[in-house]
Amino acid sequence: MTTDVHEPSGAPEPVLPAGQDHPSGHGYGPRKDEYLKRLRRVEGQVRGISRMVDEDQYCIDVLTQVAAATKALHAVSLGLLEDHLGHCVAEAARESGETGDDALVRAKVAEATAAIARLVR
Amino acid sequence: MTTDVHEPSGAPEPVLPAGQDHPSGHGYGPRKDEYLKRLRRVEGQVRGISRMVDEDQYCIDVLTQVAAATKALHAVSLGLLEDHLGHCVAEAARESGETGDDALVRAKVAEATAAIARLVR
Amino acid sequence: MTTDVHEPSGAPEPVLPAGQDHPSGHGYGPRKDEYLKRLRRVEGQVRGISRMVDEDQYCIDVLTQVAAATKALHAVSLGLLEDHLGHCVAEAARESGETGDDALVRAKVAEATAAIARLVR
Amino acid sequence: MTTDVHEPSGAPEPVLPAGQDHPSGHGYGPRKDEYLKRLRRVEGQVRGISRMVDEDQYCIDVLTQVAAATKALHAVSLGLLEDHLGHCVAEAARESGETGDDALVRAKVAEATAAIARLVR
Repeated sequence: MTTDVHEPSGAPEPVLPAGQDHPSGHGYGPRKDEYLKRLRRVEGQVRGISRMVDEDQYCIDVLTQVAAATKALHAVSLGLLEDHLGHCVAEAARESGETGDDALVRAKVAEATAAIARLVR
Repeated sequence: MTTDVHEPSGAPEPVLPAGQDHPSGHGYGPRKDEYLKRLRRVEGQVRGISRMVDEDQYCIDVLTQVAAATKALHAVSLGLLEDHLGHCVAEAARESGETGDDALVRAKVAEATAAIARLVR
Repeated sequence: MTTDVHEPSGAPEPVLPAGQDHPSGHGYGPRKDEYLKRLRRVEGQVRGISRMVDEDQYCIDVLTQVAAATKALHAVSLGLLEDHLGHCVAEAARESGETGDDALVRAKVAEATAAIARLVR
Repeated sequence: MTTDVHEPSGAPEPVLPAGQDHPSGHGYGPRKDEYLKRLRRVEGQVRGISRMVDEDQYCIDVLTQVAAATKALHAVSLGLLEDHLGHCVAEAARESGETGDDALVRAKVAEATAAIARLVR
Protein backbone atom coordinates (compact mmCIF):
# COMPACT_ATOMS: atom_id res chain seq x y z
CA MET A 1 0.00 0.00 0.00
CA THR A 2 2.70 2.47 -0.97
CA THR A 3 1.83 5.49 -3.07
CA ASP A 4 2.84 6.14 -6.69
CA VAL A 5 1.84 2.67 -7.84
CA HIS A 6 -0.30 4.06 -10.61
CA GLU A 7 0.41 7.13 -12.66
CA PRO A 8 -2.66 7.25 -14.86
CA SER A 9 -2.36 10.83 -15.98
CA GLY A 10 0.01 11.49 -18.82
CA ALA A 11 0.90 7.84 -19.18
CA PRO A 12 0.27 6.45 -22.68
CA GLU A 13 -2.64 4.04 -23.01
CA PRO A 14 -1.13 0.58 -22.42
CA VAL A 15 -1.50 -2.06 -25.08
CA LEU A 16 -2.00 -4.97 -22.74
CA PRO A 17 -5.60 -6.14 -22.07
CA ALA A 18 -7.41 -4.41 -19.19
CA GLY A 19 -6.49 -6.28 -16.05
CA GLN A 20 -5.92 -5.99 -12.35
CA ASP A 21 -3.13 -3.47 -12.66
CA HIS A 22 -4.49 -1.60 -15.63
CA PRO A 23 -4.82 2.18 -15.00
CA SER A 24 -8.43 1.89 -16.17
CA GLY A 25 -8.83 -0.72 -13.43
CA HIS A 26 -10.28 1.86 -11.04
CA GLY A 27 -13.48 3.27 -12.33
CA TYR A 28 -14.02 5.35 -9.21
CA GLY A 29 -11.37 7.89 -10.26
CA PRO A 30 -13.71 10.79 -11.00
CA ARG A 31 -15.47 10.38 -7.64
CA LYS A 32 -12.32 9.70 -5.62
CA ASP A 33 -12.65 12.77 -3.39
CA GLU A 34 -16.26 11.95 -2.63
CA TYR A 35 -15.28 8.44 -1.53
CA LEU A 36 -12.42 9.71 0.61
CA LYS A 37 -14.83 12.12 2.31
CA ARG A 38 -17.41 9.40 2.89
CA LEU A 39 -14.82 6.98 4.25
CA ARG A 40 -13.48 9.66 6.60
CA ARG A 41 -17.02 10.09 7.88
CA VAL A 42 -17.38 6.32 8.47
CA GLU A 43 -14.05 6.37 10.33
CA GLY A 44 -15.48 9.11 12.55
CA GLN A 45 -18.64 7.08 13.10
CA VAL A 46 -16.64 4.06 14.23
CA ARG A 47 -14.57 6.26 16.55
CA GLY A 48 -17.83 7.63 17.95
CA ILE A 49 -19.04 4.07 18.62
CA SER A 50 -15.82 3.33 20.55
CA ARG A 51 -16.51 6.42 22.65
CA MET A 52 -20.08 5.26 23.33
CA VAL A 53 -18.81 1.87 24.48
CA ASP A 54 -16.13 3.52 26.58
CA GLU A 55 -18.82 5.66 28.23
CA ASP A 56 -21.00 2.59 28.90
CA GLN A 57 -23.85 3.89 26.81
CA TYR A 58 -26.98 1.80 26.35
CA CYS A 59 -26.48 -1.31 24.14
CA ILE A 60 -29.37 -0.50 21.85
CA ASP A 61 -28.05 3.02 21.21
CA VAL A 62 -24.63 1.57 20.40
CA LEU A 63 -26.28 -0.95 18.05
CA THR A 64 -28.15 1.86 16.28
CA GLN A 65 -24.85 3.61 15.55
CA VAL A 66 -23.21 0.36 14.38
CA ALA A 67 -26.15 -0.12 11.99
CA ALA A 68 -25.66 3.44 10.69
CA ALA A 69 -21.93 2.84 10.05
CA THR A 70 -22.71 -0.47 8.33
CA LYS A 71 -25.28 1.27 6.13
CA ALA A 72 -22.74 3.97 5.20
CA LEU A 73 -20.22 1.27 4.20
CA HIS A 74 -22.90 -0.43 2.11
CA ALA A 75 -23.52 2.85 0.30
CA VAL A 76 -19.80 3.17 -0.43
CA SER A 77 -19.79 -0.41 -1.79
CA LEU A 78 -22.74 0.25 -4.07
CA GLY A 79 -21.10 3.41 -5.39
CA LEU A 80 -17.81 1.63 -6.08
CA LEU A 81 -19.68 -1.19 -7.74
CA GLU A 82 -21.64 1.13 -10.01
CA ASP A 83 -18.42 2.89 -11.03
CA HIS A 84 -16.76 -0.46 -11.61
CA LEU A 85 -19.59 -1.77 -13.78
CA GLY A 86 -19.80 1.48 -15.74
CA HIS A 87 -16.07 1.70 -16.40
CA CYS A 88 -14.10 -1.52 -16.03
CA VAL A 89 -16.82 -4.01 -16.99
CA ALA A 90 -18.21 -1.79 -19.76
CA GLU A 91 -14.71 -1.27 -21.16
CA ALA A 92 -14.08 -5.01 -21.17
CA ALA A 93 -17.37 -5.46 -23.04
CA ARG A 94 -16.41 -2.87 -25.65
CA GLU A 95 -13.00 -4.48 -26.08
CA SER A 96 -14.52 -7.91 -26.50
CA GLY A 97 -16.94 -6.35 -29.00
CA GLU A 98 -13.97 -5.28 -31.07
CA THR A 99 -11.93 -8.45 -30.74
CA GLY A 100 -14.88 -10.84 -30.86
CA ASP A 101 -13.44 -12.64 -27.83
CA ASP A 102 -15.83 -12.84 -24.87
CA ALA A 103 -13.31 -14.26 -22.39
CA LEU A 104 -12.36 -10.91 -20.87
CA VAL A 105 -15.88 -9.62 -20.30
CA ARG A 106 -16.93 -12.97 -18.85
CA ALA A 107 -14.00 -12.88 -16.41
CA LYS A 108 -14.84 -9.30 -15.39
CA VAL A 109 -18.51 -10.13 -14.86
CA ALA A 110 -17.65 -13.21 -12.79
CA GLU A 111 -15.29 -11.09 -10.70
CA ALA A 112 -17.94 -8.40 -10.15
CA THR A 113 -20.56 -11.00 -9.25
CA ALA A 114 -18.22 -12.52 -6.67
CA ALA A 115 -17.78 -9.03 -5.19
CA ILE A 116 -21.57 -8.57 -5.07
CA ALA A 117 -21.91 -11.97 -3.38
CA ARG A 118 -19.46 -10.87 -0.67
CA LEU A 119 -21.55 -7.73 -0.25
CA VAL A 120 -24.85 -9.61 0.04
CA ARG A 121 -23.04 -12.26 2.04
CA MET B 1 -21.00 12.01 23.96
CA THR B 2 -19.13 13.54 26.90
CA THR B 3 -17.36 11.25 29.31
CA ASP B 4 -18.38 10.43 32.89
CA VAL B 5 -22.07 10.13 32.06
CA HIS B 6 -22.27 6.78 33.83
CA GLU B 7 -20.38 5.85 36.94
CA PRO B 8 -21.33 2.20 37.27
CA SER B 9 -18.47 1.19 39.50
CA GLY B 10 -18.91 1.87 43.17
CA ALA B 11 -22.39 3.28 42.64
CA PRO B 12 -25.08 1.53 44.70
CA GLU B 13 -27.52 -0.65 42.78
CA PRO B 14 -30.43 1.67 41.93
CA VAL B 15 -33.93 0.72 42.97
CA LEU B 16 -35.68 1.99 39.86
CA PRO B 17 -36.72 -0.53 37.18
CA ALA B 18 -34.16 -1.34 34.48
CA GLY B 19 -34.53 1.30 31.81
CA GLN B 20 -32.68 3.24 29.14
CA ASP B 21 -30.40 5.01 31.57
CA HIS B 22 -30.07 2.22 34.06
CA PRO B 23 -26.42 1.23 34.74
CA SER B 24 -27.46 -2.37 34.07
CA GLY B 25 -28.65 -1.09 30.69
CA HIS B 26 -25.35 -2.05 29.08
CA GLY B 27 -24.90 -5.77 29.14
CA TYR B 28 -21.60 -5.55 27.27
CA GLY B 29 -19.76 -4.32 30.36
CA PRO B 30 -17.69 -7.46 31.00
CA ARG B 31 -16.52 -7.53 27.37
CA LYS B 32 -16.00 -3.79 27.03
CA ASP B 33 -12.25 -4.02 26.37
CA GLU B 34 -12.79 -6.66 23.71
CA TYR B 35 -15.29 -4.40 21.91
CA LEU B 36 -13.00 -1.39 22.11
CA LYS B 37 -10.21 -3.46 20.61
CA ARG B 38 -12.43 -4.75 17.82
CA LEU B 39 -13.77 -1.29 17.03
CA ARG B 40 -10.25 0.10 16.93
CA ARG B 41 -9.42 -2.60 14.39
CA VAL B 42 -12.45 -1.66 12.25
CA GLU B 43 -11.36 1.97 12.42
CA GLY B 44 -7.96 0.88 11.11
CA GLN B 45 -9.63 -1.14 8.34
CA VAL B 46 -11.63 1.90 7.21
CA ARG B 47 -8.49 4.04 7.29
CA GLY B 48 -6.78 1.37 5.17
CA ILE B 49 -9.62 1.55 2.63
CA SER B 50 -9.17 5.33 2.38
CA ARG B 51 -5.51 4.73 1.66
CA MET B 52 -6.37 2.19 -1.06
CA VAL B 53 -8.73 4.68 -2.72
CA ASP B 54 -6.14 7.43 -2.38
CA GLU B 55 -3.60 5.14 -4.12
CA ASP B 56 -6.08 4.33 -6.92
CA GLN B 57 -6.09 0.65 -6.13
CA TYR B 58 -8.31 -1.71 -8.12
CA CYS B 59 -12.07 -1.32 -7.39
CA ILE B 60 -12.61 -4.99 -6.66
CA ASP B 61 -9.76 -5.04 -4.13
CA VAL B 62 -11.25 -1.97 -2.43
CA LEU B 63 -14.66 -3.67 -2.40
CA THR B 64 -13.15 -6.76 -0.79
CA GLN B 65 -11.81 -4.64 2.06
CA VAL B 66 -15.13 -2.80 2.46
CA ALA B 67 -16.85 -6.18 2.71
CA ALA B 68 -14.33 -7.25 5.40
CA ALA B 69 -14.97 -4.08 7.44
CA THR B 70 -18.74 -4.56 7.09
CA LYS B 71 -18.40 -8.15 8.28
CA ALA B 72 -16.35 -7.03 11.29
CA LEU B 73 -19.07 -4.49 12.21
CA HIS B 74 -21.70 -7.22 11.87
CA ALA B 75 -19.73 -9.38 14.28
CA VAL B 76 -19.60 -6.50 16.78
CA SER B 77 -23.38 -6.07 16.41
CA LEU B 78 -24.06 -9.74 17.05
CA GLY B 79 -21.84 -9.70 20.12
CA LEU B 80 -23.55 -6.61 21.53
CA LEU B 81 -26.92 -8.15 20.80
CA GLU B 82 -26.05 -11.40 22.56
CA ASP B 83 -24.85 -9.46 25.61
CA HIS B 84 -27.98 -7.33 25.52
CA LEU B 85 -30.31 -10.32 25.32
CA GLY B 86 -28.42 -12.17 28.04
CA HIS B 87 -28.35 -9.23 30.44
CA CYS B 88 -30.90 -6.51 29.83
CA VAL B 89 -33.67 -8.59 28.27
CA ALA B 90 -33.13 -11.51 30.64
CA GLU B 91 -33.16 -9.16 33.63
CA ALA B 92 -36.41 -7.60 32.44
CA ALA B 93 -37.87 -11.10 32.14
CA ARG B 94 -36.81 -12.01 35.67
CA GLU B 95 -38.26 -8.77 37.03
CA SER B 96 -41.54 -9.34 35.23
CA GLY B 97 -41.50 -12.90 36.63
CA GLU B 98 -41.40 -11.41 40.13
CA THR B 99 -43.91 -8.64 39.59
CA GLY B 100 -46.22 -10.61 37.30
CA ASP B 101 -46.27 -7.64 34.91
CA ASP B 102 -45.14 -8.48 31.38
CA ALA B 103 -45.04 -4.88 30.08
CA LEU B 104 -41.33 -4.37 30.70
CA VAL B 105 -40.13 -7.58 29.07
CA ARG B 106 -42.44 -7.01 26.09
CA ALA B 107 -41.02 -3.50 25.64
CA LYS B 108 -37.45 -4.80 25.86
CA VAL B 109 -38.11 -7.57 23.35
CA ALA B 110 -39.77 -5.15 20.92
CA GLU B 111 -36.78 -2.82 21.27
CA ALA B 112 -34.31 -5.66 20.65
CA THR B 113 -36.28 -6.88 17.64
CA ALA B 114 -36.27 -3.38 16.15
CA ALA B 115 -32.47 -3.36 16.59
CA ILE B 116 -32.21 -6.75 14.86
CA ALA B 117 -34.39 -5.45 12.02
CA ARG B 118 -32.01 -2.51 11.51
CA LEU B 119 -29.16 -5.02 11.46
CA VAL B 120 -30.82 -7.28 8.88
CA ARG B 121 -32.02 -4.11 7.15
CA MET C 1 -42.26 -33.43 9.04
CA THR C 2 -45.32 -35.56 9.78
CA THR C 3 -48.28 -34.01 11.54
CA ASP C 4 -49.34 -34.52 15.18
CA VAL C 5 -45.79 -34.46 16.53
CA HIS C 6 -46.77 -32.01 19.23
CA GLU C 7 -50.01 -32.01 21.15
CA PRO C 8 -49.54 -28.95 23.31
CA SER C 9 -53.18 -28.47 24.26
CA GLY C 10 -54.44 -30.58 27.09
CA ALA C 11 -51.00 -32.05 27.79
CA PRO C 12 -49.81 -31.53 31.38
CA GLU C 13 -46.99 -29.04 31.84
CA PRO C 14 -43.81 -31.15 31.65
CA VAL C 15 -41.37 -31.09 34.53
CA LEU C 16 -38.25 -31.24 32.40
CA PRO C 17 -36.43 -27.97 31.66
CA ALA C 18 -37.59 -26.02 28.61
CA GLY C 19 -35.77 -27.47 25.64
CA GLN C 20 -35.96 -28.19 21.97
CA ASP C 21 -39.02 -30.38 22.23
CA HIS C 22 -40.74 -28.52 25.00
CA PRO C 23 -44.35 -27.56 24.13
CA SER C 24 -43.51 -24.01 25.22
CA GLY C 25 -40.71 -24.17 22.65
CA HIS C 26 -42.83 -22.39 20.04
CA GLY C 27 -43.61 -18.88 21.05
CA TYR C 28 -45.34 -18.13 17.75
CA GLY C 29 -48.44 -20.10 18.74
CA PRO C 30 -50.83 -17.16 19.11
CA ARG C 31 -49.85 -15.79 15.69
CA LYS C 32 -49.73 -19.14 13.94
CA ASP C 33 -52.51 -18.34 11.47
CA GLU C 34 -50.88 -15.07 10.54
CA TYR C 35 -47.60 -16.86 9.79
CA LEU C 36 -49.32 -19.52 7.73
CA LYS C 37 -51.05 -16.81 5.70
CA ARG C 38 -47.81 -14.92 5.17
CA LEU C 39 -45.91 -18.04 4.15
CA ARG C 40 -48.68 -18.97 1.73
CA ARG C 41 -48.24 -15.54 0.17
CA VAL C 42 -44.45 -16.03 -0.13
CA GLU C 43 -45.10 -19.40 -1.78
CA GLY C 44 -47.32 -17.61 -4.28
CA GLN C 45 -44.64 -14.99 -4.88
CA VAL C 46 -42.05 -17.68 -5.64
CA ARG C 47 -44.50 -19.41 -7.99
CA GLY C 48 -45.03 -16.05 -9.70
CA ILE C 49 -41.28 -15.69 -10.17
CA SER C 50 -41.13 -19.11 -11.83
CA ARG C 51 -43.86 -17.98 -14.19
CA MET C 52 -41.92 -14.80 -15.01
CA VAL C 53 -38.81 -16.83 -15.82
CA ASP C 54 -40.87 -19.26 -17.86
CA GLU C 55 -42.27 -16.31 -19.85
CA ASP C 56 -38.76 -14.89 -20.42
CA GLN C 57 -39.54 -11.66 -18.60
CA TYR C 58 -36.86 -9.02 -18.18
CA CYS C 59 -34.07 -9.99 -15.69
CA ILE C 60 -34.39 -6.81 -13.65
CA ASP C 61 -38.14 -7.31 -13.22
CA VAL C 62 -37.52 -10.89 -12.09
CA LEU C 63 -34.86 -9.63 -9.65
CA THR C 64 -37.30 -7.08 -8.22
CA GLN C 65 -39.77 -9.87 -7.44
CA VAL C 66 -37.03 -12.07 -5.92
CA ALA C 67 -36.07 -9.12 -3.68
CA ALA C 68 -39.73 -8.73 -2.64
CA ALA C 69 -40.00 -12.44 -1.72
CA THR C 70 -36.71 -12.25 0.20
CA LYS C 71 -38.00 -9.22 2.10
CA ALA C 72 -41.21 -11.03 2.97
CA LEU C 73 -39.20 -13.99 4.32
CA HIS C 74 -37.10 -11.57 6.39
CA ALA C 75 -40.27 -10.12 7.88
CA VAL C 76 -41.43 -13.64 8.82
CA SER C 77 -38.03 -14.29 10.44
CA LEU C 78 -38.18 -11.11 12.49
CA GLY C 79 -41.69 -11.92 13.65
CA LEU C 80 -40.72 -15.46 14.67
CA LEU C 81 -37.66 -14.10 16.44
CA GLU C 82 -39.67 -11.53 18.39
CA ASP C 83 -42.13 -14.21 19.47
CA HIS C 84 -39.25 -16.49 20.40
CA LEU C 85 -37.50 -13.85 22.50
CA GLY C 86 -40.74 -12.80 24.17
CA HIS C 87 -41.81 -16.33 25.03
CA CYS C 88 -39.07 -18.95 25.05
CA VAL C 89 -36.12 -16.76 26.03
CA ALA C 90 -38.15 -14.72 28.53
CA GLU C 91 -39.51 -17.93 30.07
CA ALA C 92 -36.00 -19.31 30.43
CA ALA C 93 -34.96 -16.05 32.12
CA ARG C 94 -37.86 -16.27 34.57
CA GLU C 95 -37.06 -19.91 35.33
CA SER C 96 -33.41 -19.11 35.92
CA GLY C 97 -34.57 -16.21 38.14
CA GLU C 98 -36.39 -18.74 40.31
CA THR C 99 -33.72 -21.40 40.37
CA GLY C 100 -30.76 -19.01 40.47
CA ASP C 101 -29.12 -21.04 37.69
CA ASP C 102 -28.22 -18.98 34.62
CA ALA C 103 -27.20 -21.91 32.41
CA LEU C 104 -30.59 -22.26 30.72
CA VAL C 105 -31.05 -18.61 29.83
CA ARG C 106 -27.47 -18.40 28.57
CA ALA C 107 -28.03 -21.42 26.33
CA LYS C 108 -31.27 -19.94 24.98
CA VAL C 109 -29.64 -16.57 24.30
CA ALA C 110 -26.69 -18.22 22.52
CA GLU C 111 -29.14 -20.25 20.42
CA ALA C 112 -31.16 -17.14 19.52
CA THR C 113 -28.00 -15.20 18.65
CA ALA C 114 -26.86 -18.00 16.35
CA ALA C 115 -30.25 -17.81 14.63
CA ILE C 116 -29.89 -14.03 14.24
CA ALA C 117 -26.39 -14.53 12.81
CA ARG C 118 -27.83 -16.92 10.18
CA LEU C 119 -30.41 -14.25 9.38
CA VAL C 120 -27.84 -11.47 9.03
CA ARG C 121 -25.49 -13.96 7.37
CA MET D 1 -48.37 -12.78 -16.23
CA THR D 2 -49.95 -14.69 -19.07
CA THR D 3 -47.80 -16.89 -21.26
CA ASP D 4 -46.69 -16.17 -24.83
CA VAL D 5 -45.79 -12.57 -24.07
CA HIS D 6 -42.40 -13.01 -25.66
CA GLU D 7 -41.61 -15.10 -28.67
CA PRO D 8 -37.85 -14.74 -28.82
CA SER D 9 -37.19 -17.78 -30.97
CA GLY D 10 -37.63 -17.31 -34.66
CA ALA D 11 -38.39 -13.60 -34.28
CA PRO D 12 -36.13 -11.35 -36.34
CA GLU D 13 -33.60 -9.33 -34.38
CA PRO D 14 -35.34 -5.99 -33.73
CA VAL D 15 -33.67 -2.80 -34.84
CA LEU D 16 -34.64 -0.76 -31.79
CA PRO D 17 -32.05 -0.28 -29.03
CA ALA D 18 -31.94 -2.92 -26.31
CA GLY D 19 -34.62 -2.01 -23.79
CA GLN D 20 -37.04 -3.39 -21.28
CA ASP D 21 -38.99 -5.44 -23.77
CA HIS D 22 -36.10 -6.37 -26.02
CA PRO D 23 -35.80 -10.16 -26.55
CA SER D 24 -32.17 -9.86 -25.53
CA GLY D 25 -33.48 -8.31 -22.33
CA HIS D 26 -33.31 -11.63 -20.51
CA GLY D 27 -29.77 -12.85 -20.24
CA TYR D 28 -30.79 -15.88 -18.19
CA GLY D 29 -32.20 -17.65 -21.25
CA PRO D 30 -29.56 -20.38 -21.51
CA ARG D 31 -29.97 -21.26 -17.82
CA LYS D 32 -33.76 -20.95 -17.74
CA ASP D 33 -34.37 -24.59 -16.83
CA GLU D 34 -31.86 -24.42 -14.01
CA TYR D 35 -33.63 -21.36 -12.55
CA LEU D 36 -37.04 -22.98 -12.85
CA LYS D 37 -35.72 -26.02 -11.01
CA ARG D 38 -34.15 -23.91 -8.28
CA LEU D 39 -37.28 -21.80 -7.83
CA ARG D 40 -39.41 -24.95 -7.63
CA ARG D 41 -37.11 -26.13 -4.84
CA VAL D 42 -37.50 -22.80 -2.97
CA GLU D 43 -41.27 -23.11 -3.36
CA GLY D 44 -41.01 -26.54 -1.75
CA GLN D 45 -38.88 -25.14 1.06
CA VAL D 46 -41.47 -22.45 1.82
CA ARG D 47 -44.24 -25.06 1.78
CA GLY D 48 -42.13 -27.13 4.21
CA ILE D 49 -41.85 -24.13 6.53
CA SER D 50 -45.65 -23.73 6.51
CA ARG D 51 -45.91 -27.38 7.50
CA MET D 52 -43.41 -26.87 10.35
CA VAL D 53 -45.43 -23.92 11.65
CA ASP D 54 -48.65 -25.88 11.29
CA GLU D 55 -47.07 -28.71 13.34
CA ASP D 56 -45.93 -26.25 16.04
CA GLN D 57 -42.28 -27.08 15.54
CA TYR D 58 -39.63 -25.27 17.55
CA CYS D 59 -39.15 -21.56 16.57
CA ILE D 60 -35.40 -21.89 16.10
CA ASP D 61 -35.82 -24.85 13.76
CA VAL D 62 -38.38 -22.90 11.74
CA LEU D 63 -35.99 -19.93 11.63
CA THR D 64 -33.19 -22.18 10.35
CA GLN D 65 -35.37 -23.26 7.45
CA VAL D 66 -36.43 -19.67 6.69
CA ALA D 67 -32.73 -18.73 6.59
CA ALA D 68 -32.08 -21.61 4.17
CA ALA D 69 -34.89 -20.49 1.85
CA THR D 70 -33.64 -16.88 2.00
CA LYS D 71 -30.14 -18.07 1.12
CA ALA D 72 -31.49 -20.06 -1.84
CA LEU D 73 -33.32 -16.95 -3.11
CA HIS D 74 -30.12 -14.94 -2.73
CA ALA D 75 -28.28 -17.51 -4.85
CA VAL D 76 -30.96 -17.21 -7.55
CA SER D 77 -30.59 -13.41 -7.45
CA LEU D 78 -26.83 -13.58 -7.84
CA GLY D 79 -27.17 -15.98 -10.75
CA LEU D 80 -29.71 -13.76 -12.51
CA LEU D 81 -27.53 -10.74 -11.87
CA GLU D 82 -24.44 -12.41 -13.31
CA ASP D 83 -26.39 -13.42 -16.42
CA HIS D 84 -27.79 -9.91 -16.69
CA LEU D 85 -24.39 -8.25 -16.42
CA GLY D 86 -22.82 -10.70 -18.86
CA HIS D 87 -25.56 -10.34 -21.47
CA CYS D 88 -27.71 -7.23 -21.22
CA VAL D 89 -25.17 -4.84 -19.70
CA ALA D 90 -22.28 -6.17 -21.80
CA GLU D 91 -24.40 -5.88 -24.95
CA ALA D 92 -25.28 -2.29 -24.10
CA ALA D 93 -21.57 -1.58 -23.61
CA ARG D 94 -20.72 -3.10 -26.99
CA GLU D 95 -23.48 -1.08 -28.67
CA SER D 96 -22.31 2.12 -27.05
CA GLY D 97 -18.77 1.22 -28.18
CA GLU D 98 -20.06 1.17 -31.75
CA THR D 99 -22.22 4.26 -31.58
CA GLY D 100 -19.93 6.25 -29.30
CA ASP D 101 -22.95 7.13 -27.15
CA ASP D 102 -22.60 6.11 -23.50
CA ALA D 103 -26.18 6.91 -22.48
CA LEU D 104 -27.47 3.35 -22.90
CA VAL D 105 -24.71 1.62 -20.97
CA ARG D 106 -24.95 4.19 -18.19
CA ALA D 107 -28.71 3.62 -17.92
CA LYS D 108 -28.21 -0.16 -17.84
CA VAL D 109 -25.52 0.07 -15.16
CA ALA D 110 -27.66 2.40 -13.03
CA GLU D 111 -30.57 -0.03 -13.36
CA ALA D 112 -28.38 -3.00 -12.39
CA THR D 113 -26.95 -1.11 -9.42
CA ALA D 114 -30.44 -0.27 -8.20
CA ALA D 115 -31.28 -3.97 -8.40
CA ILE D 116 -28.14 -4.83 -6.41
CA ALA D 117 -29.10 -2.19 -3.82
CA ARG D 118 -32.52 -3.85 -3.41
CA LEU D 119 -30.70 -7.15 -2.97
CA VAL D 120 -28.33 -5.80 -0.33
CA ARG D 121 -31.25 -3.76 0.99
